[in-house]
Amino acid sequence: MKKIQKIFDFIVEIEKLKGVYRKTKPVGLDRFENSAEHSWHVSLCALMLKEYANEKINIDRVIKMLLLHDLGEIDAGDTIVYDSHTIEVKEQEDAGFRRILQLLPEEQQNDYLILWEEFENAQSSDAKYAKAIDRIPPLLHNLHGEGHSWKTHNISKEQVFAVNSKIANGSQKVWDVLKDKLDDAVDVGMLK
Amino acid sequence: MKKIQKIFDFIVEIEKLKGVYRKTKPVGLDRFENSAEHSWHVSLCALMLKEYANEKINIDRVIKMLLLHDLGEIDAGDTIVYDSHTIEVKEQEDAGFRRILQLLPEEQQNDYLILWEEFENAQSSDAKYAKAIDRIPPLLHNLHGEGHSWKTHNISKEQVFAVNSKIANGSQKVWDVLKDKLDDAVDVGMLK
Repeated sequence: MKKIQKIFDFIVEIEKLKGVYRKTKPVGLDRFENSAEHSWHVSLCALMLKEYANEKINIDRVIKMLLLHDLGEIDAGDTIVYDSHTIEVKEQEDAGFRRILQLLPEEQQNDYLILWEEFENAQSSDAKYAKAIDRIPPLLHNLHGEGHSWKTHNISKEQVFAVNSKIANGSQKVWDVLKDKLDDAVDVGMLK
Repeated sequence: MKKIQKIFDFIVEIEKLKGVYRKTKPVGLDRFENSAEHSWHVSLCALMLKEYANEKINIDRVIKMLLLHDLGEIDAGDTIVYDSHTIEVKEQEDAGFRRILQLLPEEQQNDYLILWEEFENAQSSDAKYAKAIDRIPPLLHNLHGEGHSWKTHNISKEQVFAVNSKIANGSQKVWDVLKDKLDDAVDVGMLK
């Protein structure tokens, strides 16, 4: 099969991410966010906040990580960040990501697999920053949306702070601003 | 106001692109595509097809163009590619793009304005490739979706070929494969 046709097959397959729904609603919209539009949103978040990364990062690598990071959800579905990610879910996402990459011409697969594994391992400066950015939009959705997802899933302030303080691993400065906003949300009773 | 807060305001404002609906449906989904998920999709299309660009391109610049390219639609709405883009719509998109950029800290605005103008002018090798890629998913949506948007908007094969043959300006090789697919669509009566 022509290589371009293989890439078209990949392009069509990844459309399915537009049908994977997340647990928060975009600000101003009365429907849940899907993982494709989320991937666009976090890519631009990363670009605009790049100077606030703790360590020196390569923003072009970060953007590629974020464009690709949720493809495994096509097979595994989305999991709320407050659920402990079981080994089973991780394995499903991993298998799903590999299945989708295998649609591409063989010589294109490996670079993206390495990049995705780097993201998942969250050890490099690029991955730590990308992981931090990935947590920001759901917080803004809740902060601008009366804590809808916290309330629905019965998430406590202790859980929100425990999980999201990891943003500081990628950007202390961004976490400092978000932490103030979360404190305000606690003060007004949006987050209990 | 803190710079990070300005960037958060931008991040929240651009959520509105998730509510701007286009004229085609993603393969397998019974709803129209929005411009945010489209922007993600074309960014990955560009990445995976990069070796087929006619000229030497900088894929990292192309991806940034594509992540940003539809932000003006938040104010102007989406226009089908077969409508002649009136000066009025262009002016609305231009004003909309500038309005949204102005939410960012001042020193961050100019680089993205320059990049967006380069995309709109479609003269550089990066912009020609980005513009070509932008046309691919709606064709695949129609080809995998019984020509739904061609039929609804009464688009002729002459229009489809006239508008989309411009893909060859960015990638002759990709256009050659798509042209064969469109010829097949004509043969089976999907495109009249």
